[in-house]
Amino acid sequence: MAVDTTTIFQHGTLGLLVPGLYDGTITAGELLTHGDTGIGTLNGLYGEVIILDGHAYQAREDGQIREIAADETLPFASVHFEKPDASADLTPMSQADFEAQMLKDYQLQNMFAAIRVDGTFKKIHTRVAPRQQRPYKTLVQATATQPEFKGEHVTGTIIGYYAPHLFQGATVGGYHLHFLSADHQLGGHLLGFEIDQATVKVQRFADFKVHLPIDNTAYLQEQFDNQEIDSAINKAER
Amino acid sequence: MAVDTTTIFQHGTLGLLVPGLYDGTITAGELLTHGDTGIGTLNGLYGEVIILDGHAYQAREDGQIREIAADETLPFASVHFEKPDASADLTPMSQADFEAQMLKDYQLQNMFAAIRVDGTFKKIHTRVAPRQQRPYKTLVQATATQPEFKGEHVTGTIIGYYAPHLFQGATVGGYHLHFLSADHQLGGHLLGFEIDQATVKVQRFADFKVHLPIDNTAYLQEQFDNQEIDSAINKAER
Repeated sequence: MAVDTTTIFQHGTLGLLVPGLYDGTITAGELLTHGDTGIGTLNGLYGEVIILDGHAYQAREDGQIREIAADETLPFASVHFEKPDASADLTPMSQADFEAQMLKDYQLQNMFAAIRVDGTFKKIHTRVAPRQQRPYKTLVQATATQPEFKGEHVTGTIIGYYAPHLFQGATVGGYHLHFLSADHQLGGHLLGFEIDQATVKVQRFADFKVHLPIDNTAYLQEQFDNQEIDSAINKAER
Repeated sequence: MAVDTTTIFQHGTLGLLVPGLYDGTITAGELLTHGDTGIGTLNGLYGEVIILDGHAYQAREDGQIREIAADETLPFASVHFEKPDASADLTPMSQADFEAQMLKDYQLQNMFAAIRVDGTFKKIHTRVAPRQQRPYKTLVQATATQPEFKGEHVTGTIIGYYAPHLFQGATVGGYHLHFLSADHQLGGHLLGFEIDQATVKVQRFADFKVHLPIDNTAYLQEQFDNQEIDSAINKAER
């Protein structure tokens, strides 16, 4: 079967994590039928998910990284089938310079794009969301105290997305990047990085498909607040 | 080929109409490969589009209604392949009661759904966006003076969507309904209605797919403002 390389498939919304709808509503096995590359979180907001080359990994709050089994579930994830339409070699640069350069070079502003950076990094700074127990805290509460991890001279891969700011709430407007080191010793949601030598691959998408958990009663009944979601994403996901 | 009846396909965003990006970026012919039912507007914000049973119609500001040719283009449209999952007979009721009842009976709040109402209406009140010339005015300016049409004891069809408010901007959060009378003498964007006797068909969707005009330079370069888009949709699309 030919896979669709022009669509980002997203299960759930970033917005549903905000009030604490952390129950997994798609299996990793099903998710991987929609893409071989991406990011997400597991049932219970348990860690950070990094999907590369068809394998889904969990970075846990204890610093461990392991491959996710097909029957584990996720409340939120974005995936795509990798087929970059551009790539470039990068010289040493800061995160801010990198993000500004990608926006400019690839005119990302109003577009969905996957960003993958393979190489060596002078600095990597990640956080990992800690597993939640019911009754679930809100996303801002749950991520108020979370382990952070730092590495220097790390070889690995940044993977994630750029989304138009219009889609803030449905997803993260702007960049949403995760990291996994080549030796699987460091990973998580990226808070900061500094590139040494790397290659960036950019894949631009005409299509963004959101799949909602419409069989989940808690989701259907939640009273969402757009302002609260916007504010919470800016606090918890930047 | 089996058609996908679980996805709403949307070309463009409501947000891109707000600053005045009215150039058509998809042909009606291509649009109809993604659905046989839906709503939209034509190149130049020229009128209101109503798509029923695989035919796309334009309600024009002069009150005329005609079928759209395959090579005409649209800046924004939402379509789906019709396969309702619920239907109900409706007794006389106001728009407000209808909208509240649909929300409650079908738990629409956080879901995408297509709403089709066939029957007789005590009152129908529509507006039709007037064709714009370059340089394009903003959506609020363009719709500040627009013809409105009213009918009593009209037989026809309401077609449109309910979308979660989280997706305001990408589309219209809440209800977005158009109307076409059976005799094709009255149509447009619905401002108000009162049901006499009708049947409603509801089709709920797990998937919402947005297709962006990423080959359109004006779209790529536009500096969108989420607050302005939200406010403009509330003014121009309610």
